[in-house]
Amino acid sequence: MKTTIRTTETLFADRVLHVPQSFIREILKVASNPDIISFAGGLPNPSLFPIKELEDAATYVFQHQGMQALQYTSTEGYYPLREFISQRYRQRYGLKIPPEQILITNGSQQALDLIGKIFINPGDHVLLERPTYLGALQCLSMFQPKFHEVELNADGLDIDNLENKLWAQSMKLFYCIPNFQNPTGTRYTKEIREKMVEVMSRYNTFIIEDDPYGDIFFDGEDLEPLYSYMPEKTILLGSFSKSIAPGLRLGWMVANPEVIQKATIMKQASDLHSGNLTQYILHRFLTTHSLDAHLKKIRDNYRFQRDTMMSCLKYYFPATITYTIPQGGMFAWVTLPAEITARELLAKALEQQIIFVPGDSFYATNPDSQTIRLNYSNVDEATMRKAMNVLGGIVTSMCNQPY
Amino acid sequence: MKTTIRTTETLFADRVLHVPQSFIREILKVASNPDIISFAGGLPNPSLFPIKELEDAATYVFQHQGMQALQYTSTEGYYPLREFISQRYRQRYGLKIPPEQILITNGSQQALDLIGKIFINPGDHVLLERPTYLGALQCLSMFQPKFHEVELNADGLDIDNLENKLWAQSMKLFYCIPNFQNPTGTRYTKEIREKMVEVMSRYNTFIIEDDPYGDIFFDGEDLEPLYSYMPEKTILLGSFSKSIAPGLRLGWMVANPEVIQKATIMKQASDLHSGNLTQYILHRFLTTHSLDAHLKKIRDNYRFQRDTMMSCLKYYFPATITYTIPQGGMFAWVTLPAEITARELLAKALEQQIIFVPGDSFYATNPDSQTIRLNYSNVDEATMRKAMNVLGGIVTSMCNQPY
Repeated sequence: MKTTIRTTETLFADRVLHVPQSFIREILKVASNPDIISFAGGLPNPSLFPIKELEDAATYVFQHQGMQALQYTSTEGYYPLREFISQRYRQRYGLKIPPEQILITNGSQQALDLIGKIFINPGDHVLLERPTYLGALQCLSMFQPKFHEVELNADGLDIDNLENKLWAQSMKLFYCIPNFQNPTGTRYTKEIREKMVEVMSRYNTFIIEDDPYGDIFFDGEDLEPLYSYMPEKTILLGSFSKSIAPGLRLGWMVANPEVIQKATIMKQASDLHSGNLTQYILHRFLTTHSLDAHLKKIRDNYRFQRDTMMSCLKYYFPATITYTIPQGGMFAWVTLPAEITARELLAKALEQQIIFVPGDSFYATNPDSQTIRLNYSNVDEATMRKAMNVLGGIVTSMCNQPY
Repeated sequence: MKTTIRTTETLFADRVLHVPQSFIREILKVASNPDIISFAGGLPNPSLFPIKELEDAATYVFQHQGMQALQYTSTEGYYPLREFISQRYRQRYGLKIPPEQILITNGSQQALDLIGKIFINPGDHVLLERPTYLGALQCLSMFQPKFHEVELNADGLDIDNLENKLWAQSMKLFYCIPNFQNPTGTRYTKEIREKMVEVMSRYNTFIIEDDPYGDIFFDGEDLEPLYSYMPEKTILLGSFSKSIAPGLRLGWMVANPEVIQKATIMKQASDLHSGNLTQYILHRFLTTHSLDAHLKKIRDNYRFQRDTMMSCLKYYFPATITYTIPQGGMFAWVTLPAEITARELLAKALEQQIIFVPGDSFYATNPDSQTIRLNYSNVDEATMRKAMNVLGGIVTSMCNQPY
């Protein structure tokens, strides 16, 4: 037995050594205990899933389209679903994206894998936001790039820092989440978007614009995606995981025809196509119900949750913390007082059955051990108030310790 | 525009150059024309999909498990579904595989991608059957291995050739389809399995045992998978695409705990998890209906289709062709007379609105241009007889030509 296991190890590819273990994965295992109050996950609130409406859509699909929906299909995805996505970009932003430039993926996570496959040779340089989505770090790490980071600020991106990074090193990709970023909740303002694309236009770098949260805005206006400024050199990723339900496992990639063609070949090799049945069900749902009415429900609910969390941070925590006020999405980002690290706080919180994600998981380099990510979409108000009160008390007590 | 496209090309990774374009992909585009009679695809017969039963299962899931089924889930997959797969191996072969050693994937195609990610560094040596499944060639090519091939024969594998190949070159993986292979329809006999694992036990090479067709046998007895002989060094892939429906996009990987752990990390990075809703629906179907009764229907139907195709090959084609008599699965493999190439035949068949796949797509090296793959699962009897008669006539006429 031992011999065999040692033997297996010698067979593993180098890239296996480059994928960071997910600390969140370990935390989420704890979260499956029902006694635990979790601000850790990135789960949408399941009470907002349109269950009955999806059931009706499924019944229709089984009764009228069963043979097609259960059969193999084209790698690109169900054409009417791609048309729906195309039309929505048109209605929302006046953006003309033909369905042929839309590839259906297993959530936007798979799009990251396809992008890695298409673009990254070992040693290639990839620019990330600092901090960034852990799942992107994990996925892109498999392709063994060299990561660089650009600083975020209250308006979104530090443009001078972006210019410096691109000037210093030729980068193949810049991965960013301009709307209500995971983990920080930050959004790029319109001005920042304009300045950013002006900088990007001078470098031979693709923008990977990950936009899973763009539908979930609370305040301000709907801002045009970076794709609309630079369609040839932007790959725009969308997802139904936050707007409808993650269990469908459906997202999409928008890109220029050449990139879509390469991505389609890569996807065919990777899993032939995304779930066909779920594509039919989702399409039926989207064309027989108002997506906007559904999104309004989610926005109203999450806005209230966000407000509750903000008031908890204000009233239950010492004034020495700082935090973002997210205008959308599912996360708040807290920087702890200098004397407390996130992992120390997590250890004490766990004793009180409360968990969150230490921010250090979200950095490609030089993790900031003072930061924490708090999810507000998946805890009811009373529980949130109670648990945030306890958490704030722990932070206060840790600040007051004389050593 | 032109400048940008040239720019994009310079950004593509090396592996993009290594994935063969799928000729089948092009053929299947032709097949979408309803006037075309297709022996080309690998499609199960949609009239055998358990549509009503899956609808009932879906209704149950939406009404009783909607919130869980539509939420994110663990990368490993829905535990009760993994338990079902585990129990089935136990009932069928007495094989004890704990659910923890089963990872749910998007069809078995995704398992190939995960295996490539775990094992293959560029330049690593991988052994394939000659010929082999095109989708495996495509998928594994992305990881830039060196392919080697071992000959097949009527009993399955040429054991001497296997030994020679392994002796000459250390291989990381041997990818094989022991049951009713795609494309040849060949099955490894019990004796071949025993000899094969004896040989494999002396080399540090993992067996990738792809088994999408094992449920679809017509003649002979159910044979134990290679995994049962060498569980530590075999990765066994299964699929619900042929037994239930491909549109669900669900398959699985069985392997030792260390490989499953690595595969799970790779899958998490690739797409977080497989479709959760479809896993719940499938599990409900499997636990409220008899899979064996359903499989009997498919076997009886495909056996009849196989018999029809065999009689067509016997009576409509010149005696100078040779062909396999598949004991299961969905494909027959024909070797044409020396004076005809498969692509020439395809050109003439297309004029008569008939298509199939030339065998040359299924070789990693030195393609045999005399071979063709015929699918018999997806054409009704009358159409099959008519089209096979025409196809046989074309072959006969091509043999009779004096040049």
